[in-house]
Amino acid sequence: MAVSVPGASTLLSAARREVTRPTPVWFMRQAGRYLPEYRAIREKHTLLGICANPQLAAEVTLQPVWRLGVDAAIVFADILLPLVPMGLDLAFVEGEGPLLRNPIRSPADIARLGETDVANALAPVSEAVRLVRAALPPTVPVIGFAGAPFTVASYAIEGGSSRHFVETKRLMYEHPDAWNALLAKLVRVLGEYLAAQVEAGAEVLQVFDSWAGVLSPSDYRRYVFPHTRALFVQLGLLGVPVIHFGVNTGELLPLLVEAGGDVIGLDWRLGLDDGWKRIGFERGVQGNLDPVALFAPAAELEKRVRDIIARAEGRPGHIFNLGHGLLPATPVDAVRRVVDLVHSLTA
Amino acid sequence: MAVSVPGASTLLSAARREVTRPTPVWFMRQAGRYLPEYRAIREKHTLLGICANPQLAAEVTLQPVWRLGVDAAIVFADILLPLVPMGLDLAFVEGEGPLLRNPIRSPADIARLGETDVANALAPVSEAVRLVRAALPPTVPVIGFAGAPFTVASYAIEGGSSRHFVETKRLMYEHPDAWNALLAKLVRVLGEYLAAQVEAGAEVLQVFDSWAGVLSPSDYRRYVFPHTRALFVQLGLLGVPVIHFGVNTGELLPLLVEAGGDVIGLDWRLGLDDGWKRIGFERGVQGNLDPVALFAPAAELEKRVRDIIARAEGRPGHIFNLGHGLLPATPVDAVRRVVDLVHSLTA
Repeated sequence: MAVSVPGASTLLSAARREVTRPTPVWFMRQAGRYLPEYRAIREKHTLLGICANPQLAAEVTLQPVWRLGVDAAIVFADILLPLVPMGLDLAFVEGEGPLLRNPIRSPADIARLGETDVANALAPVSEAVRLVRAALPPTVPVIGFAGAPFTVASYAIEGGSSRHFVETKRLMYEHPDAWNALLAKLVRVLGEYLAAQVEAGAEVLQVFDSWAGVLSPSDYRRYVFPHTRALFVQLGLLGVPVIHFGVNTGELLPLLVEAGGDVIGLDWRLGLDDGWKRIGFERGVQGNLDPVALFAPAAELEKRVRDIIARAEGRPGHIFNLGHGLLPATPVDAVRRVVDLVHSLTA
Repeated sequence: MAVSVPGASTLLSAARREVTRPTPVWFMRQAGRYLPEYRAIREKHTLLGICANPQLAAEVTLQPVWRLGVDAAIVFADILLPLVPMGLDLAFVEGEGPLLRNPIRSPADIARLGETDVANALAPVSEAVRLVRAALPPTVPVIGFAGAPFTVASYAIEGGSSRHFVETKRLMYEHPDAWNALLAKLVRVLGEYLAAQVEAGAEVLQVFDSWAGVLSPSDYRRYVFPHTRALFVQLGLLGVPVIHFGVNTGELLPLLVEAGGDVIGLDWRLGLDDGWKRIGFERGVQGNLDPVALFAPAAELEKRVRDIIARAEGRPGHIFNLGHGLLPATPVDAVRRVVDLVHSLTA
């Protein structure tokens, strides 16, 4: 069993399934509205404004590292940014989330989507990665990220968040060739985007297939798997570990593992031990505290953190995280307590 | 293996795991907006207005039986109706769904909730069951229903639909005694409500624990299971089969089965065969077509229906249904084709 070098990043070690102490911890959406210093910047800048400004994006990325002592920074960006140079008109509406004013609804819309100049348009994200990398000690890696082809496509088609994914599935069922063309375009764009982040200094990547769990295993295998697999094959050439994350993926885990990823993210719907067994112990696992547990009384929260650590059984390859992103109303103190507890329990 | 009596209800036979031909089929939300004759009534009456008027409720309940030839009627009502006599102010806001203007947020709110006069306030639902029963041939049973304690509580606490169930889980974690008192009250009220429906002529019951799938198995076991189990114990005395339904319940299935139900509802996230195996073949299974499959081209929809029928392998105890409710934009023709196809494939 490989053991990490003292002074190395615990997150990188865990992603390589090396024995590492303490267990690394970071949080999805750790740079966000629950932090007063983030809200102060958001008072003066829009979300897209921050993403377009590498200095601001870097500042926001670093906030949770200084405040919480987490073991990784994740570059501040949005999974929908790559859709902008492809030709979609993205906005964020207060209280409603993302809105794409010209959603994709037909094969003709898909044919029109651009693929060139993407790297150029997304250069501010890479620049933010570069600034963050330069500001951090070597023990804290920068995580680059992108949405998975299915999840990004679902936003492009629905025009925003969705509950039933009717338009996405309809396009998939009615126009499988156009669907495949769309996902192939996204694979190229997302692959290029992630490669640029690695070149800028990202030492780990996370692929968010947040909504894959709305699909049956047979739909996932037929319409999504080949594309996600193709993306992971590309990412394999970059030489950094990749985390593959989704919500509600209990039934999809064998397929997600087959599609790729050194570490698989789990939500809280199954025990970390059960999920890891289903994933296979030759992969790492990331998770899996319910984000709402951070609203629980301290003793209850502590019990839940201890339970997750116990289920990891000291096995190498566990990255502590939530099962989904931090919610805006989360008490900062609770987040801080989780970091300290994970570190002290696994020191 | 028991065989159903010719001329008996196929749905009742299947719920008793008798060999029955053809396989029975009905749809959650089969009385609803996708039907033009329903929309015509809704132009003149509110949803709560229909529920309060047994003649109208019966008419709307019968519409899909005449139009589609489904094998059961489900009384037109809403799972939140029992909250009204308990003291909550329920409204339906166009395009936003249910709204409870005075949600429960504290132990004091829970202590104030009434339990008396519930049967009286809900008498219109029983009366609708009576009218529907009288209008239908004996081969078509009436399904009575209620929400499960957790799902009803989640609406009462959140004040409407929710994405993250923060207030529900917070109350659960912060005030476990008050939470238990709330669920115990709901068990009494819902048990009484369902008993009244059976007395009025409902020959099958369905308990909707639609949102139980947001809970981890350990939270379900600790905060929900004892109450749902208590409800099912009460329902067992009524002498009618009970269907226990939820969404995203893959990981909870063993607990749902243990809580109760002659038939367990499955969503589309796992194959009917895999789900049934997890449930155990001594129970029936209901499901599990993705409601969005009804938007697919005819050939694709047919393939999916055939797949579900094949996965049931002619085993007694399958009730064909969706994995969740019919969506308002569903094409009526597609729904009709599914009924005919299920019947012809299993004749």
